[in-house]
Amino acid sequence: MKILIVKNERIADSSLMAEEISRQLRSAGIETITAEAYSTFKLERDIGIIIVLGGDGTLIRVAHLYGDCDIPIMGVNMGTVGFLSSIEVEEIESSLDKLIRGGYSLDERMLLEIDVIQASQRLDRYYSLNEVSFKSVRGRILSLEIAIDGQSHATFRGDGIIVATPTGSTAYSLSAGGPVIDPLLEVLLLTPLAAYHLYRRPLVIDAGKEITVHPLADDQTEISVDGQVKCGLKENQYVIVRKAPHKVKLLRFNEDSFFHTVNTKLWRNESD
Amino acid sequence: MKILIVKNERIADSSLMAEEISRQLRSAGIETITAEAYSTFKLERDIGIIIVLGGDGTLIRVAHLYGDCDIPIMGVNMGTVGFLSSIEVEEIESSLDKLIRGGYSLDERMLLEIDVIQASQRLDRYYSLNEVSFKSVRGRILSLEIAIDGQSHATFRGDGIIVATPTGSTAYSLSAGGPVIDPLLEVLLLTPLAAYHLYRRPLVIDAGKEITVHPLADDQTEISVDGQVKCGLKENQYVIVRKAPHKVKLLRFNEDSFFHTVNTKLWRNESD
Amino acid sequence: MKILIVKNERIADSSLMAEEISRQLRSAGIETITAEAYSTFKLERDIGIIIVLGGDGTLIRVAHLYGDCDIPIMGVNMGTVGFLSSIEVEEIESSLDKLIRGGYSLDERMLLEIDVIQASQRLDRYYSLNEVSFKSVRGRILSLEIAIDGQSHATFRGDGIIVATPTGSTAYSLSAGGPVIDPLLEVLLLTPLAAYHLYRRPLVIDAGKEITVHPLADDQTEISVDGQVKCGLKENQYVIVRKAPHKVKLLRFNEDSFFHTVNTKLWRNESD
Amino acid sequence: MKILIVKNERIADSSLMAEEISRQLRSAGIETITAEAYSTFKLERDIGIIIVLGGDGTLIRVAHLYGDCDIPIMGVNMGTVGFLSSIEVEEIESSLDKLIRGGYSLDERMLLEIDVIQASQRLDRYYSLNEVSFKSVRGRILSLEIAIDGQSHATFRGDGIIVATPTGSTAYSLSAGGPVIDPLLEVLLLTPLAAYHLYRRPLVIDAGKEITVHPLADDQTEISVDGQVKCGLKENQYVIVRKAPHKVKLLRFNEDSFFHTVNTKLWRNESD
Repeated sequence: MKILIVKNERIADSSLMAEEISRQLRSAGIETITAEAYSTFKLERDIGIIIVLGGDGTLIRVAHLYGDCDIPIMGVNMGTVGFLSSIEVEEIESSLDKLIRGGYSLDERMLLEIDVIQASQRLDRYYSLNEVSFKSVRGRILSLEIAIDGQSHATFRGDGIIVATPTGSTAYSLSAGGPVIDPLLEVLLLTPLAAYHLYRRPLVIDAGKEITVHPLADDQTEISVDGQVKCGLKENQYVIVRKAPHKVKLLRFNEDSFFHTVNTKLWRNESD
Repeated sequence: MKILIVKNERIADSSLMAEEISRQLRSAGIETITAEAYSTFKLERDIGIIIVLGGDGTLIRVAHLYGDCDIPIMGVNMGTVGFLSSIEVEEIESSLDKLIRGGYSLDERMLLEIDVIQASQRLDRYYSLNEVSFKSVRGRILSLEIAIDGQSHATFRGDGIIVATPTGSTAYSLSAGGPVIDPLLEVLLLTPLAAYHLYRRPLVIDAGKEITVHPLADDQTEISVDGQVKCGLKENQYVIVRKAPHKVKLLRFNEDSFFHTVNTKLWRNESD
Repeated sequence: MKILIVKNERIADSSLMAEEISRQLRSAGIETITAEAYSTFKLERDIGIIIVLGGDGTLIRVAHLYGDCDIPIMGVNMGTVGFLSSIEVEEIESSLDKLIRGGYSLDERMLLEIDVIQASQRLDRYYSLNEVSFKSVRGRILSLEIAIDGQSHATFRGDGIIVATPTGSTAYSLSAGGPVIDPLLEVLLLTPLAAYHLYRRPLVIDAGKEITVHPLADDQTEISVDGQVKCGLKENQYVIVRKAPHKVKLLRFNEDSFFHTVNTKLWRNESD
Repeated sequence: MKILIVKNERIADSSLMAEEISRQLRSAGIETITAEAYSTFKLERDIGIIIVLGGDGTLIRVAHLYGDCDIPIMGVNMGTVGFLSSIEVEEIESSLDKLIRGGYSLDERMLLEIDVIQASQRLDRYYSLNEVSFKSVRGRILSLEIAIDGQSHATFRGDGIIVATPTGSTAYSLSAGGPVIDPLLEVLLLTPLAAYHLYRRPLVIDAGKEITVHPLADDQTEISVDGQVKCGLKENQYVIVRKAPHKVKLLRFNEDSFFHTVNTKLWRNESD
């Protein structure tokens, strides 16, 4: 088994940290490869664990690249937001010790599978760790028909909507007024953006259900996945969001629950 | 099998409606008894179904009285709020037809079990269909220690907190900024009331977990269950909230999902 | 003095209504001209009052075209949103009677003057009755430097911000969580859109102050005025928002205050 | 002219600080008296300035005691919340220098005058620097009739309402979802607490207007002024809130505007 270390050249000290980690692992007899988050490279067959140096953005990028390979990811927080990258820089030495001894557990995080459909054909498929958002291309008010398991739920009017995983509940959805959700729950969170009707509120549903988002004619709706714009929706196109069949596996070294850390994290982010 | 019809003398026409329903059921050979929601009476052994005439308040009262008897409840909405009382007055004749023919399904709704504890002894136990709230007796800012499954979660400062079921997510918690939750999900919702720290947000957790609420010394905390004040918490007392072992069963006659009706209900309530 | 009647061909019955109003005014000896809101036409010199048939959108369009001509506007609400168009269709006959007899007062509504600046030169100037918004072109998180009267106020991160008049406080800003403001107050309202930091809140300041919005490099910020996208901000460009020197004058026929009507309006809009 | 130094025995180092300040002032030939915030004492005639050592709570207490004496107050922030106590401990030496040289300006802050009325008679009068709140005595939903300048505005249902000054907009009202308001504006802020109707929103009105709050029969409404419970409202009693004729004067030593400091303060408070 090899360990892949993914660094991010945009983050100071990330190369230095990669070398340091590599040295420590090799001295314990573990082979390592180092890669850069924002270049593409082929994933070798015998990678057993991926260590990601960066903030949540970097980890999400790696999860998008290798998410379906079922390889556990260990995130070291070198960025401003570290909900997913649970290991802080000062904990890294002790964490590597635990990693070498196998002293860790795996947190499985739900992903969204996002299908763009036209005339019953799938045009595109995306995966998301945090959220998919539907927003207007040119600042206009959107009208979106939303169905849950095929049954009409609401015609939404406003800036747009977010469909988030529990993991994503502490990201963009939180800024839009959504609740914090235990990341181990199997639910979907639908959070409105500047809803025209004040009674439109964030909605939590079973992740066994599918959400269909159908923009009404003449609107121009743009889809973003985990903060990256993916495509615009043309007339007669719609999107189905459901729980993906596979999950992302995150290494965890302590017994602190999500509930213990979420408040610290939320507070610390306030000081960026 | 008999059917118990519970009317509410505070609601106009509820007695007349009770007689009308009784007449229709008896003409189909079904025995009925009629009772008044706000008097106490003994529940006969062979009651198979309870029909409640009133708003959600009346239905909650009946659920509190007979909730552990496992008898299905059919709510006819004669009040202003009818999330639980899903049958409207104009649908009653056709609903009784379906009831007689057995053409209904049962929605099981989670209850909260709320234990007041002192020195490891249980002083009181309450059940709740919507929510339990912890608020100050005399308008002072409260400090509440909150733990989840025994692990410290947060020290909350503010007007208080609500712990709600998914059913209760469209009641008090909604007014306090909480999300709407699919009533069939097994989760607990913790919603802050006027939190001193702006990063305190509604939190959704697995209903398999227990929430402990421990007021800090010198505060005077009052506990309300489904809108009724139950008791004040003295020093060294605390409360454990968990999912109750039994559920309330509600009759449903149509195939409309919660998601289809919630927006209509939310909008209609805005006009009370 | 002539009266200009502006109809909106997109709204059913607006032409019929224009004819009816014209007939009633002419029978009282008042000359009228009729125009279509979405064609351009030259405003004749002797127009004394403009009657606008439509929703708030139509009235705002007319105010943009003739706002600096100091001609009072009478809005007849034939649309879904009628905060500005205060006369309902069923009140029109009695309102015209009052108009003919001079039995009305004038509500003066503040406008925003919005200057786009580069290298100390003004590139563009817009006027707004409701709000100007600064949002991302491609769904990315924006960073905006905001100064008040030249003094640094905050670096905002998130979807964007709205600067609204009191009149605009019941429009887009309300959807984004802003307060309702007495339309006669001379204040500016700065409302964040999905702010990354939870302590960023709507801010009310004296309208004698200027707000400067400076996008940080590499962001692509789009400016919309009263719901219409106007331009994108290039690097080294920034925007100054201040109270305009002139106002829009709206005819009012009853003594109902804003406070009396705002709740009715807010509720009615919930049912669109 | 003498300077009164008010210390707070509940705050560590406040006595030591009082002695230190007294020494520095006396060495500049200025006479001082020291008093304890939570004892009562007679205000001598020749007091020219009051220095308050503590958080906003202590300063508010002093303002309540001497608010109508027109004596400028200099707040030194030794507590957790320091919106009003604008001088930090590390700035005190340089601030005293400026004080001695007269190098300061005065910020005038609006107060609320709160009259409890029965049968056209005034029963009680209170003054408030931050806010007056109307809340239920026993956790029940309140119904409050609210009028603005004698004209009916709304029947509010929910936990209660807050009427705040601009100064109070960063206190309790902020926790309840209200906007931040420039403290120099002459406006009143009406913020709902857990409103039953989702379209009830914070409202900003001209401070020249009066707000009347009339609890509907059978409700038990408790009035708190700046966080202290004052009285319960009996049937047939109501409350008028208006701008007080006098103001509190706060010393300011720097040119930083409110807008420059509010975000820092809001963020710092998040870490208490």
